[in-house]
Amino acid sequence: MTDTKVTPLDAAAIEVLKTITTATLTTILLKKGLRNVWIRGGMPLRPGQERVVGPAFTFRFVPAREDLATPASWGSPISTRAAIEAMPEGAFAVIDAMGVADAGVFGDILCARMVKRGAVGLVTDGVVRDLDGVLGTNLPVWSRGAAAPPSVAGLTFVGWEETIGCGGVCVIPGDTIVADKDGAVVIPAAYLGEILEEAPEQERLEGWIVNEVENGEKLPGLYPMNEATRARYDAWRKDA
Amino acid sequence: MTDTKVTPLDAAAIEVLKTITTATLTTILLKKGLRNVWIRGGMPLRPGQERVVGPAFTFRFVPAREDLATPASWGSPISTRAAIEAMPEGAFAVIDAMGVADAGVFGDILCARMVKRGAVGLVTDGVVRDLDGVLGTNLPVWSRGAAAPPSVAGLTFVGWEETIGCGGVCVIPGDTIVADKDGAVVIPAAYLGEILEEAPEQERLEGWIVNEVENGEKLPGLYPMNEATRARYDAWRKDA
Amino acid sequence: MTDTKVTPLDAAAIEVLKTITTATLTTILLKKGLRNVWIRGGMPLRPGQERVVGPAFTFRFVPAREDLATPASWGSPISTRAAIEAMPEGAFAVIDAMGVADAGVFGDILCARMVKRGAVGLVTDGVVRDLDGVLGTNLPVWSRGAAAPPSVAGLTFVGWEETIGCGGVCVIPGDTIVADKDGAVVIPAAYLGEILEEAPEQERLEGWIVNEVENGEKLPGLYPMNEATRARYDAWRKDA
Amino acid sequence: MTDTKVTPLDAAAIEVLKTITTATLTTILLKKGLRNVWIRGGMPLRPGQERVVGPAFTFRFVPAREDLATPASWGSPISTRAAIEAMPEGAFAVIDAMGVADAGVFGDILCARMVKRGAVGLVTDGVVRDLDGVLGTNLPVWSRGAAAPPSVAGLTFVGWEETIGCGGVCVIPGDTIVADKDGAVVIPAAYLGEILEEAPEQERLEGWIVNEVENGEKLPGLYPMNEATRARYDAWRKDA
Amino acid sequence: MTDTKVTPLDAAAIEVLKTITTATLTTILLKKGLRNVWIRGGMPLRPGQERVVGPAFTFRFVPAREDLATPASWGSPISTRAAIEAMPEGAFAVIDAMGVADAGVFGDILCARMVKRGAVGLVTDGVVRDLDGVLGTNLPVWSRGAAAPPSVAGLTFVGWEETIGCGGVCVIPGDTIVADKDGAVVIPAAYLGEILEEAPEQERLEGWIVNEVENGEKLPGLYPMNEATRARYDAWRKDA
Amino acid sequence: MTDTKVTPLDAAAIEVLKTITTATLTTILLKKGLRNVWIRGGMPLRPGQERVVGPAFTFRFVPAREDLATPASWGSPISTRAAIEAMPEGAFAVIDAMGVADAGVFGDILCARMVKRGAVGLVTDGVVRDLDGVLGTNLPVWSRGAAAPPSVAGLTFVGWEETIGCGGVCVIPGDTIVADKDGAVVIPAAYLGEILEEAPEQERLEGWIVNEVENGEKLPGLYPMNEATRARYDAWRKDA
Repeated sequence: MTDTKVTPLDAAAIEVLKTITTATLTTILLKKGLRNVWIRGGMPLRPGQERVVGPAFTFRFVPAREDLATPASWGSPISTRAAIEAMPEGAFAVIDAMGVADAGVFGDILCARMVKRGAVGLVTDGVVRDLDGVLGTNLPVWSRGAAAPPSVAGLTFVGWEETIGCGGVCVIPGDTIVADKDGAVVIPAAYLGEILEEAPEQERLEGWIVNEVENGEKLPGLYPMNEATRARYDAWRKDA
Repeated sequence: MTDTKVTPLDAAAIEVLKTITTATLTTILLKKGLRNVWIRGGMPLRPGQERVVGPAFTFRFVPAREDLATPASWGSPISTRAAIEAMPEGAFAVIDAMGVADAGVFGDILCARMVKRGAVGLVTDGVVRDLDGVLGTNLPVWSRGAAAPPSVAGLTFVGWEETIGCGGVCVIPGDTIVADKDGAVVIPAAYLGEILEEAPEQERLEGWIVNEVENGEKLPGLYPMNEATRARYDAWRKDA
Repeated sequence: MTDTKVTPLDAAAIEVLKTITTATLTTILLKKGLRNVWIRGGMPLRPGQERVVGPAFTFRFVPAREDLATPASWGSPISTRAAIEAMPEGAFAVIDAMGVADAGVFGDILCARMVKRGAVGLVTDGVVRDLDGVLGTNLPVWSRGAAAPPSVAGLTFVGWEETIGCGGVCVIPGDTIVADKDGAVVIPAAYLGEILEEAPEQERLEGWIVNEVENGEKLPGLYPMNEATRARYDAWRKDA
Repeated sequence: MTDTKVTPLDAAAIEVLKTITTATLTTILLKKGLRNVWIRGGMPLRPGQERVVGPAFTFRFVPAREDLATPASWGSPISTRAAIEAMPEGAFAVIDAMGVADAGVFGDILCARMVKRGAVGLVTDGVVRDLDGVLGTNLPVWSRGAAAPPSVAGLTFVGWEETIGCGGVCVIPGDTIVADKDGAVVIPAAYLGEILEEAPEQERLEGWIVNEVENGEKLPGLYPMNEATRARYDAWRKDA
Repeated sequence: MTDTKVTPLDAAAIEVLKTITTATLTTILLKKGLRNVWIRGGMPLRPGQERVVGPAFTFRFVPAREDLATPASWGSPISTRAAIEAMPEGAFAVIDAMGVADAGVFGDILCARMVKRGAVGLVTDGVVRDLDGVLGTNLPVWSRGAAAPPSVAGLTFVGWEETIGCGGVCVIPGDTIVADKDGAVVIPAAYLGEILEEAPEQERLEGWIVNEVENGEKLPGLYPMNEATRARYDAWRKDA
Repeated sequence: MTDTKVTPLDAAAIEVLKTITTATLTTILLKKGLRNVWIRGGMPLRPGQERVVGPAFTFRFVPAREDLATPASWGSPISTRAAIEAMPEGAFAVIDAMGVADAGVFGDILCARMVKRGAVGLVTDGVVRDLDGVLGTNLPVWSRGAAAPPSVAGLTFVGWEETIGCGGVCVIPGDTIVADKDGAVVIPAAYLGEILEEAPEQERLEGWIVNEVENGEKLPGLYPMNEATRARYDAWRKDA
């Protein structure tokens, strides 16, 4: 896997991000000026799916043209098959299906192979097919759901490891994807360091606030914090 | 809670409405000329959620403007926080998110506080965020689902206890909301009395018809009833 | 049931089709030039619903006009009630609701009666109502979900056993419907014979490929098969 | 033309309706309880097109299936060609294209033949094709615009003189269509008499009000009229 | 007109803004962090309509409820009629129709009265009705087009001079609206001063660039300018 | 211009295609199995725009990310500016804007430069900006219309001369684009030869049919032709 643009995340970063909700990530990114980082349509295929983290490995589709989008095309050198074989271990597949919901980007065979190649997850603004089979592979999937027709009923595959749009969001190979019950979020590569530094504190703070609410505190002055609350929180932090 | 426009429902009305399906309510309201009372997009967040009844307490959002829709705005006097503190016990939060599905109106902290304030439910034509956390508060929610981004990624909060649109339906503070597995229905204040009178009989009648169908009766003449069926039903009612 | 256009499927055909996924059916039909056979919006109402097969018995709705779409119309000779009484045993109800998602085509009473008449399933590009009641009838339903309002809130029923559109697909009475977790697919009557012949082999082949992937085979050359793989598969088939 | 369900409008009715705006028609029909009579998507193809009136002659399409929707199908006995030959003089073609905007229902040849057969207009919730040619026939068209592809690229024709939906409105053969710069409105057959009686007075009254506004009158009390304004108007009417 | 929140723009500001395209305004506002200021759906009703500038006077609609949205409601104290009488001279009407395109917010009578009251323009994310009549009033309108049905077919009016959403944009009474052939843009009140200062220079610069392109200059280095181009431009400016 | 993939069309091919309507092209391509060749949303920006023909030169956008989609990015080596400088003479710009209608892909400056570079037309599934300026350049444009905001308000430019989707159609650099009043059609490179051979005859035949219709011929047997009509036509052709 020498020529991929996608470098693995280090294990420590993955450990940190596994403890951060996508809700918290979007809040932090918004404070940095990024409002558009959540992939529309990419929701958990299996209820209760756990959080998954990995670098984005992208797939790009365009609309089907009947002479190109055929089962025969699956054997071409530029095919989803070849792309999957190019995936590095630990990668998160991000698939631009242009929101098409009536042709499944992948079924059980391709998902099974991705698992073999060490893919950690798949997110698409489209759908998968052969739902039972895909769930059987245990690949965590975020999508608009499932549909029976093959990709070539609506889509032509054109390449991998390109900058793509997915669910209205720009995804560049090597960006970090974090996905959980609220869907999938893109952390642009240049922002990853700051996120790793700031996110754990934000989670801690929000956890403390929830606790305060459960103890009967009112919201004004608590969330966002006024000075008095901030002092109480800082004291608690010191003790903790 | 002296200045709210929302007066509590009396306990007897709540008891009656808890036995009436939203399907029955929409049929009765349609017979009175109201075809548009079901909130599009507001479906149960948790499968199997029980029926909930309460007076509407409304929240209004408009689209985000980057200088207004900021985390800092959460501390303003006109904020969702202040609105929640104004909710009377027993209220049903109804949130006009203009159908925006990529920014969550509320997350776990605000839902937890609503529960503390005695809110019985929340319905929106948008989404919530931090799904796990929201489910953890046990606030019954009807929505388009969940999304990670904060409200300010797409929405600006402007006020509460105003007449709003929600899911294509007009909701006036003090209207009664009934929500169950078929979604959420608005009973305009002026129609509540009639509904309380007529709905239990409609439920009884439909239950009897289902029973007849299970006994092998054909539909024509049964539903709607012809005179002979009506007579049989009346006889059964007298006996019951 | 002498005058219906819908003739029952023979039991052997049903047995075969119950073993074929809709994913496989769409692949085979696409190879024959039919790309548009999957009913958009018709997804399982109950998670885990099993595959169902039957000949299409169609219902056609047009938009509601307030003087026609009334509860009184339910007693007319051209009503959903009369249509249900015309259904032959084993039929699969296919309901053209024009994608309308805010008025339920049928509720518990009509679904219960369909079950009595031997209907095997129902698919619509709209929604049902009275979700609890419909699930209680055990009629397998594929739809966009559920809504509280009655059909007449948005729809006028106009006839049955006509050629219709459903979810963007043409359905002719007597076409075969197969529905599973990936949704519902139409097999045009003229194609049924070929499908019955070819589909089992396609399933067998794909099962073998999945197995190969689990054994660590790469995709290129495997799926689609190159000559070497084909030879290996043929050898396996002979042995099996 | 003996077997059509569409009977011609009498010339006097046409004369009256040619003086009534569709805006006025929708206001009167709404007062009678009909809120849904305006065909969504059916707007004038040629800027400045004059008002046209005629009885509805309906065409019904369903989605394309590749084996049915072919140029060869244009020669079938159930074809748009046969339908056009069945049109009585003075009819208004109303075409249910299910809102499909990427396949033109008719082009220049069929529109030219409709003109020969005495059609007065055509309204569809879809599009026409060969815009230049269609405009050249001088058939007044209301549509979503134009597109290059033939009907069979997206549509299968199934019949004529059936009750249809068009632009979200129920249209029954023999209803009256009035179309002008605000689009096309359906007057259900049973309401035609009342409309012919009431509409001219409504137009007169609104014309008077516009005049009053131009003379500087304020709106409250003028529109709708209070008693004093009504008296002034009645006096003017008597004089006029 | 003493109690309106909308204060007139001064004549000098209007003169400046009449020379600035909405394209230029959106570029400048984006540079200041405001990406969402263009009202989706609000396009010129009359081809070739000139640029218009004025302070926003807002109208708010919610969805129709059949008992509230009636012709009788037009006589209520909270009506569009009363709102129009509250408009100060020079105001730009901004109407939140929630994007509803099948019920016209205003027709000829109300537009005629607005002209009498000195309104300079009207923008809505919905439609107007009685197109001929509205054009006849010469009120410049930006909308999704026209439709025949009255507002009450789909809308209930609830108030004026409130913060609203219009075409996906937040509009606060007193913001400045500039509308031309590219549609309508909102200048938030707090940004007006800066815009008045910076916009004329931006227009001048873009005009010079267009001229350079016409003289055969290549784009790179020209737009955006590199240092050499900037120097040439500065020299030209000094001479001009 | 040595390194472009786009080779000029020969002048004779252009002359032929200028006489063929896009309606005729789509009919011929459909007969060859290509149903999806018309670019949705790409309609003439200026009423009455003449037919234009050229090889596709593609531009690809993805959604905006606030740190990438900035006015500063316009100076980057991968920018729309650089792409335009790479266009060969005679090219037809095809721009994948993912259907985004609230950010203009190009304004007057870029269109003016395209004209200088010899571009023959531009088609996008998005919009342009600065409508007056763009019309002033006389570049023939097919789009969803115009909008004020700059591309970076919604789009990030990522590259040129790639295979793209545009309006739901696959476009490969070097395909031929023909655009007229019915919109823009893609002729895949491999089909161009056949089209050039067959299209003129199809136009001749349809012209003859229109003439027959004008002479009072009925449609059945005429269009499509039966044998007798075919013989008459062949005779006419021989004479002509």
